[in-house]
Amino acid sequence: MLNLDDVVTAARRIAPYVRTTPVLAVPDGRWGADTVFKLEFTQHTGSFKARGAFNRILRAVELGTIGPGAGVIAASGGNAGIAVAYAARRLGFTAEIFVPRTAPAAKVAKLHQLGAKVAPVGQEYAEAYAQAVVRAEQTGALFCHAYDQEDVVAGQGTLALELLDQLDGFDTVVVSVGGGGLAAGITAGLDGRAGVVAVEPETIPTLHDALAAGGPVDVAVSGVAADSLGARRIGSIAYEIAVAHRVRSVLVTDESIVATRARLWQDCRLAVEHGAAAAPAALESGGYVPEPGERVVVVLCGANTDPATITAGG
Amino acid sequence: MLNLDDVVTAARRIAPYVRTTPVLAVPDGRWGADTVFKLEFTQHTGSFKARGAFNRILRAVELGTIGPGAGVIAASGGNAGIAVAYAARRLGFTAEIFVPRTAPAAKVAKLHQLGAKVAPVGQEYAEAYAQAVVRAEQTGALFCHAYDQEDVVAGQGTLALELLDQLDGFDTVVVSVGGGGLAAGITAGLDGRAGVVAVEPETIPTLHDALAAGGPVDVAVSGVAADSLGARRIGSIAYEIAVAHRVRSVLVTDESIVATRARLWQDCRLAVEHGAAAAPAALESGGYVPEPGERVVVVLCGANTDPATITAGG
Repeated sequence: MLNLDDVVTAARRIAPYVRTTPVLAVPDGRWGADTVFKLEFTQHTGSFKARGAFNRILRAVELGTIGPGAGVIAASGGNAGIAVAYAARRLGFTAEIFVPRTAPAAKVAKLHQLGAKVAPVGQEYAEAYAQAVVRAEQTGALFCHAYDQEDVVAGQGTLALELLDQLDGFDTVVVSVGGGGLAAGITAGLDGRAGVVAVEPETIPTLHDALAAGGPVDVAVSGVAADSLGARRIGSIAYEIAVAHRVRSVLVTDESIVATRARLWQDCRLAVEHGAAAAPAALESGGYVPEPGERVVVVLCGANTDPATITAGG
Repeated sequence: MLNLDDVVTAARRIAPYVRTTPVLAVPDGRWGADTVFKLEFTQHTGSFKARGAFNRILRAVELGTIGPGAGVIAASGGNAGIAVAYAARRLGFTAEIFVPRTAPAAKVAKLHQLGAKVAPVGQEYAEAYAQAVVRAEQTGALFCHAYDQEDVVAGQGTLALELLDQLDGFDTVVVSVGGGGLAAGITAGLDGRAGVVAVEPETIPTLHDALAAGGPVDVAVSGVAADSLGARRIGSIAYEIAVAHRVRSVLVTDESIVATRARLWQDCRLAVEHGAAAAPAALESGGYVPEPGERVVVVLCGANTDPATITAGG
């Protein structure tokens, strides 16, 4: 199973390419006396996904499984695709990103802007994914999964090591879950030094339902956070780590996500995407109630969003 | 002249009430290899003004010039008024804020929300200011100036001490100037340990024109940043400190402010007000060109803005 060593190695590997994202203590308001926000949305490409993308590609370079002139392939109409396109460009590789034809125009434009070749396929993510895998097999390009590859998860986990450096101890990390790559990486990186609370929208309970079923199962995907947390099924790596480390699962309503996102702007002038707001929504809604004195870090993991929708109440 | 001791005392005084705002190093992009952003817009009330407001009121409490049940008065349709209303409420005083009838409805609503009594007076700030001063004299309430009082300037300067704690040395702080309270406080707090670059819109050159004229003079006020940097004249405290410490003055165009504000969102997912974007616009436009290896801190001092105007190009 993926472990601390993998995350430590990943951190060394990607250090020249990623930002150390800041922390903001908010001891004075509605967030709880010992709450700290990790402002990971200030990462390159506007989400934590850059960490995993760099680790995936750089590891392949080390192993010699990708050479100069070779390509990188991903399937994603969202944050993962943008991160892979960005990392590929900075490392000198071409990127081909398979997106469903329903992908938002703004995200497709961003992929073009990053120099990626964009391949629109089908109406659903699953079709784009299947095509991307076939294409990678045909061409020998490096396939970068959005969450369910060890190198990707180890890269996301570097966020945990950063927190251990930045803070003088903490008890719990609260993090949003889609495919679970970030939560799993953080859990491996913490390696028992703090607990993890995994927060999902009620409308996309991939981890919650997997824990109930005793293994990953498909869930229906809908709701305000589907653009960033819309995986149909928890990653197998994430599931295994969640069970082994007893990650706690919490669900939040879309209503609570929307209200919390607005509150983050009102109270801290932080503009994040709905998926990122799921994590603090667990505190705001009472879905997760810290013990007195429990030092909680809430990861705000992305901001690839139209900020106009915040003040409109969206 | 206001000095480091005043700022150190202010920092001790206001510590329980203000946030330590984060820093974000951006060594990899267009901002220069050794540039750090100070995310002061995450301060209470969305701007640095909370620091000065708390110091002004708390000092008056120490001196006994304001007692329980007494009031606090300010004239401002913007950040300073909101900060005074917030500080007054947290410290248990009533606040009366004089605003021009032209003040934005959203800011007036915010004042009401903070429990302040709002007094609309005249069409221009100068009228609201004159009435506020008269009212303070009549009632014995504590008048809080937006920038030209020593306690206010000392409070703003606590940001500099925070930077000295947070960073492993730096050479220059780049900061936006309206009435000059923040720039002056930072200059006093640094006390020669780093230089200060004061950035103003071409459309509101209060410090620039004062330095040219050999003393504070009235300037015309217009442009995109007038809502936060729209003082008609540099504060006398700020002018004196700027001359004594050889603060460098840089002007930027409105076009550059707008483009830089959009760039901060695109590149770092930071949504700030136009006045705050003036400081990084000095780098973006080449108005200030750091020496090779010069470690530059750029203060992003406020975000009381409608983020919808960022993606609209405004």
